[in-house]
Amino acid sequence: MRPGPATLRAVPMFERLDGKLLGQLDAITELHGFDVNAELCRQGAIPAVLHVLLDGQVALSGTAPDETQAVMEVLRPIACFVLAAVLTEQPYLMTATATTEVRVLTINAPALRALIRTEHDLALALLGTAARDFRSMVRQIRDLKLRSATQRLGCYLLALVNDPAATSAQFRLPFDKALLAGRLGCRQDSLSRAFAALRGLGVETHGSAVVLHDVARLRAFAMPDELTDTPVI
Amino acid sequence: MRPGPATLRAVPMFERLDGKLLGQLDAITELHGFDVNAELCRQGAIPAVLHVLLDGQVALSGTAPDETQAVMEVLRPIACFVLAAVLTEQPYLMTATATTEVRVLTINAPALRALIRTEHDLALALLGTAARDFRSMVRQIRDLKLRSATQRLGCYLLALVNDPAATSAQFRLPFDKALLAGRLGCRQDSLSRAFAALRGLGVETHGSAVVLHDVARLRAFAMPDELTDTPVI
Repeated sequence: MRPGPATLRAVPMFERLDGKLLGQLDAITELHGFDVNAELCRQGAIPAVLHVLLDGQVALSGTAPDETQAVMEVLRPIACFVLAAVLTEQPYLMTATATTEVRVLTINAPALRALIRTEHDLALALLGTAARDFRSMVRQIRDLKLRSATQRLGCYLLALVNDPAATSAQFRLPFDKALLAGRLGCRQDSLSRAFAALRGLGVETHGSAVVLHDVARLRAFAMPDELTDTPVI
Repeated sequence: MRPGPATLRAVPMFERLDGKLLGQLDAITELHGFDVNAELCRQGAIPAVLHVLLDGQVALSGTAPDETQAVMEVLRPIACFVLAAVLTEQPYLMTATATTEVRVLTINAPALRALIRTEHDLALALLGTAARDFRSMVRQIRDLKLRSATQRLGCYLLALVNDPAATSAQFRLPFDKALLAGRLGCRQDSLSRAFAALRGLGVETHGSAVVLHDVARLRAFAMPDELTDTPVI
């Protein structure tokens, strides 16, 4: 099923494209639903489509030659994956799995590359997306190299606080602790120890429900970067 | 000093651009030399130029709010840094320091962004570069999450073997062990233990000189990915 130009315009990276270009994109795009646990793309395969996640949640994971797996990123709407593999026509470095029911756009990869070669506005839009994707990976490497697992968990929880002026906060973890451990680059037993260590800093958890009783204290311990991107380009 | 179009054409990401566009790029580019330890850009600053490393070596490092530092990447010619920050007009996430004498091109950032907005071929060239930069960061996260420090060192040494059919190899480490430890995401004492552990797999070191006596055995242990990019787009 074609998604229609209105659905495409709701994708942030396409929002500034004109009607004609959205129509051209629509002609090479399909809208699909997948069940939980569906594999959307597989490490090692050459991309046939660019995926855009509209609803649900997708985990990107890497697999070593000995079959060890690690979660590289957990995506929430609206996000595309994996742009770099589609642009370079190189094998996926990660496998994408639906961790909930999902709704995704699939944009034909060769047709998209052909459209990029003629449509300057589309190339510019994807250039901004590729740059932001790069920065997100750099942030994760910074996190892995500069912080302990407990600090990484603290930074992750602080990022879920919507109000920058909040002194306390409560919310639900957006995904389960196995995925969270993978995303933070630690084993599940280390994640449990990290949650236990944060209890002394006012972090209370019941299943996926989290209460931060003292945001300032957690911030002083976890030291999140102030280098978040403002949503431009 | 202007580098001249011939110097620009030798930069892989610019090699397919036509003479007119290279002339336009030349008009916004300068060629500079810097001494060892010079800071070329600083985390937190808004980029004024895009750097292209022509000669020498540059370390990109991240600094946490408590001043902890970690090497994120070590660049060798020819490589640009940091494209994503220049494209998004966002603060650098990393500080670049010359670890040798270096020769770099500096391309005026606002003028480059203006040129990208009008020159489709330039936008396409940078899109390919941004995608490959992203994949390089994904590989590093895979490495950090899927391999032990000893395996990471093994993969790093195997990547320095030029002949894919070689059964043994000898070479010099391209940078010192402090930088290498940072790049591999471990402390220097862990790196020393990793080198000691690899001795049993036929890895002999004398200072920066390395001999791999049994490439196949090292490969079986370190399990490097086969997912290296072919140099296209």
